[in-house]
Amino acid sequence: MRDSTALKANPGNFFEDFRLGQIIPHAAPRTVTVGDVALYQGLFGPQFAVQSSDAFARAIGYPRAPVDDLLVFHMVFGMTVPDISLNAVANLGYADCRFLKAIYPGDTLNATSEVIGLKENSNRKTGIVYVRSRGLNQAGEAVLDYVRWVMVRKRDETAPAPGETVPELPKTVQPAQLGAACPPLKSDVYDTVLAGSPHRFGDYRPGERIDHVDGMTVEEAEHMIATRLYHNTARVHFNQFSESQGRFGRRLIYGGHVISLARALSFNGLANAFHVTAINGGRHVAPLFAGGTVFAWSEVLETAEVPGRNDIGALRLRTVATRDRPCPDFPVREGDGYDPAVILDLDYWVVMPC
Amino acid sequence: MRDSTALKANPGNFFEDFRLGQIIPHAAPRTVTVGDVALYQGLFGPQFAVQSSDAFARAIGYPRAPVDDLLVFHMVFGMTVPDISLNAVANLGYADCRFLKAIYPGDTLNATSEVIGLKENSNRKTGIVYVRSRGLNQAGEAVLDYVRWVMVRKRDETAPAPGETVPELPKTVQPAQLGAACPPLKSDVYDTVLAGSPHRFGDYRPGERIDHVDGMTVEEAEHMIATRLYHNTARVHFNQFSESQGRFGRRLIYGGHVISLARALSFNGLANAFHVTAINGGRHVAPLFAGGTVFAWSEVLETAEVPGRNDIGALRLRTVATRDRPCPDFPVREGDGYDPAVILDLDYWVVMPC
Amino acid sequence: MRDSTALKANPGNFFEDFRLGQIIPHAAPRTVTVGDVALYQGLFGPQFAVQSSDAFARAIGYPRAPVDDLLVFHMVFGMTVPDISLNAVANLGYADCRFLKAIYPGDTLNATSEVIGLKENSNRKTGIVYVRSRGLNQAGEAVLDYVRWVMVRKRDETAPAPGETVPELPKTVQPAQLGAACPPLKSDVYDTVLAGSPHRFGDYRPGERIDHVDGMTVEEAEHMIATRLYHNTARVHFNQFSESQGRFGRRLIYGGHVISLARALSFNGLANAFHVTAINGGRHVAPLFAGGTVFAWSEVLETAEVPGRNDIGALRLRTVATRDRPCPDFPVREGDGYDPAVILDLDYWVVMPC
Repeated sequence: MRDSTALKANPGNFFEDFRLGQIIPHAAPRTVTVGDVALYQGLFGPQFAVQSSDAFARAIGYPRAPVDDLLVFHMVFGMTVPDISLNAVANLGYADCRFLKAIYPGDTLNATSEVIGLKENSNRKTGIVYVRSRGLNQAGEAVLDYVRWVMVRKRDETAPAPGETVPELPKTVQPAQLGAACPPLKSDVYDTVLAGSPHRFGDYRPGERIDHVDGMTVEEAEHMIATRLYHNTARVHFNQFSESQGRFGRRLIYGGHVISLARALSFNGLANAFHVTAINGGRHVAPLFAGGTVFAWSEVLETAEVPGRNDIGALRLRTVATRDRPCPDFPVREGDGYDPAVILDLDYWVVMPC
Repeated sequence: MRDSTALKANPGNFFEDFRLGQIIPHAAPRTVTVGDVALYQGLFGPQFAVQSSDAFARAIGYPRAPVDDLLVFHMVFGMTVPDISLNAVANLGYADCRFLKAIYPGDTLNATSEVIGLKENSNRKTGIVYVRSRGLNQAGEAVLDYVRWVMVRKRDETAPAPGETVPELPKTVQPAQLGAACPPLKSDVYDTVLAGSPHRFGDYRPGERIDHVDGMTVEEAEHMIATRLYHNTARVHFNQFSESQGRFGRRLIYGGHVISLARALSFNGLANAFHVTAINGGRHVAPLFAGGTVFAWSEVLETAEVPGRNDIGALRLRTVATRDRPCPDFPVREGDGYDPAVILDLDYWVVMPC
Repeated sequence: MRDSTALKANPGNFFEDFRLGQIIPHAAPRTVTVGDVALYQGLFGPQFAVQSSDAFARAIGYPRAPVDDLLVFHMVFGMTVPDISLNAVANLGYADCRFLKAIYPGDTLNATSEVIGLKENSNRKTGIVYVRSRGLNQAGEAVLDYVRWVMVRKRDETAPAPGETVPELPKTVQPAQLGAACPPLKSDVYDTVLAGSPHRFGDYRPGERIDHVDGMTVEEAEHMIATRLYHNTARVHFNQFSESQGRFGRRLIYGGHVISLARALSFNGLANAFHVTAINGGRHVAPLFAGGTVFAWSEVLETAEVPGRNDIGALRLRTVATRDRPCPDFPVREGDGYDPAVILDLDYWVVMPC
């Protein structure tokens, strides 16, 4: 009888295991179904008509209701966790995230990542790993592409660092790239009454701020069900026995859960922003724990025409989420840092009908 | 930079915003899927064979298992909330609720309401709004029709009342209307063993009382998942931060959640009552909070033949639900009011095979 | 007005109600859908590629992703509860459990049981009932067959015992029976990278032990949603009002919930063990309550070729689950009994690609 755990269970990669240019195909492909969509609906409550109604989606030119963009993001992200961030200390940032192709129930997702940057920290205990991750459908077509960087522990502090390269990343995704996952739409038959708001692309202005008003309290069961649905196995979300002895004394909610809550809340004020088409950058400013109530507000940073498209226009939004603090006064910065209630600061593009 | 919240986020309608005869088309159409059906199953546990089994449903004449009537009701109801009851103080009653057409996975629901009554309260701070709401499928066919009345706040107490009209409402739905959503059934091949009870229509008598025996405890995650699934955005169900400062100090469970629990519990004693075909009236006698355990009992108020149908017969039921109190002694009234454990008193029609 | 509860609600069977050779057809047939599959995914988080991905399943020879074996088991088990174990004191054991045919979304399950053994306990208050239960699909084909025995209360202690017969049960299912629910596979195209582990059948040795590392905390909402999904109506899982006055003071988690958690955790070390094909025996050593964190480890008891098959080989596993105790040292026995942290000791067969 021998202990073969070290051979069979996945210990995850440590900083010194990564190599620049390394291609990592991820495990656990996932067919997205209407079951996943219903669970996502029950957990977050988004009301965007395009994703909620096959009839609405068909009327404007989709073959049927597409899967919520963020559900696709979470599933692709989840696949990368066992290889990229199982030994992560912190998820530091996202950049250049583009949704490239609509996903429909029945499609199968899988993912690969490329290591595009590595930088050891001066304490030599950890390093930063930059990966470009790509989600693919069953035909091998790219459906999502994004960069994230995480701080990863070293297995052995004396191990040499695997080089040092910090990639150049675009500050924002360019408007020409924003239409990829959106088929040509009959925006004239887009029914704003059914969709829940009269405000189309032309009704939003840079600098405009919108309080999304509602608050949503999160329970332990909810964030764990969501995170398991995505095949995300990061231990901090599920294991109260370990976390009770950890830094926070409790389970940490997956940062993407806050993004999905903020997006669902943003329906109240942005009902026609039916498609998240790119994420320019995002920061999980502070953690969220079960029992916390999430609020959100958004600012229109930019409006942009999408080259070659007169059916849709793009809004660049900054959405800020808080915990246990309503947002009628648009809290965000305080002195050199953030208002202590802020938990998410997200910069992204949505498209709306013209 | 300007605050445009007032322009973009939905403030809901206040009492003085309603007009008699006003038609309100509601937002957020919803395709019902087997995912929604599974979640409803997981949250309430109904066991009625017609809705649980495509094979059973096909054998008796349905094209496949229809969606649970109450799930359809909750989805249509949810669509009306942002326009009708976002500023409601209380949901006062239901009447003349009829299920008109079976809904199957893949069908898309949308809803409209007509204001059929208005009455300002003497304090001039609130008024009662009566609406007839109608659920439609993707072909524009009516699938559900019901009246509800809610007490709604005024935005401005000095605003003039928009007239005063109280509609006449039927006390019960007539038997001739009870077969609309039920296709002709081969009741001779309806398998009572598979369905879970030997008792058909002819085995029930007016005055008969049935204790449904089992109790079901409700968790916060459960009622919030259910209520988000229906696109119901009433704030009292989701926002512990606000509710902790409110009347009850905690989140209030959507009244429809209790109706669905009572219906699921009623399987034990009414296993062949496979279809809720009409709701005559109902009262949410007291609120339910997470941690409470729901019990239920029913009385057969009436039995009725359905004109033109010899496959099914109708039972008019009164189902009473309680919290934290088993019902072997059929609690309901106490003195001039209700037994303090009673939370729901519902009068409705079901059909059973003959 | 008369109390007809005793006539209409199901009191369940008591020990003296069972007869040797009695065939009991169970109620509440159940069409399994992608909605059920998504909910199972969200509640347990299994990552086995064959069940997660239609594309992966098709590539190796399945028509599409089959439904998780344990979800099928729980649904069939749930159907037997109202007739077999509503008045059970304890679920004592399982034997000779074989998965006979793959189930796909859209298939309908129903179940029957045969009483194969009866033995009154010496206190004459309870007796042990042995049943062979069989799950069938919509075509009447057997998909699952297993024996379980439960201790059931007598209604009347003075009632004569219905005979005494204790069936002979196989200690393990024989390898020749292990391929029934697995179509011939193209194991050469089985992609171990996508599946999450390079280790195929030939890489496992008898005596090998694997710590599955991760821990999963269970919430009340989760186990209740799961158990309702299976139509399992055993009262101890749902009714906090009654259980607060009972033996444990709280709701007891369905034993099968622990089996599914242990199976999902076992992905980490057994990623290619894609199909549970038989359960030789199992013991719920101690109860689990909400708030507990489940860990698991496995030992390979045997490896076996499956007669007539060169695509798959079988591993006989012993998987031990604990609560609130990680398993790097493989806890199981302590003195004459079990380590107090152990809650499940399961002996079963899985198949892996050769």
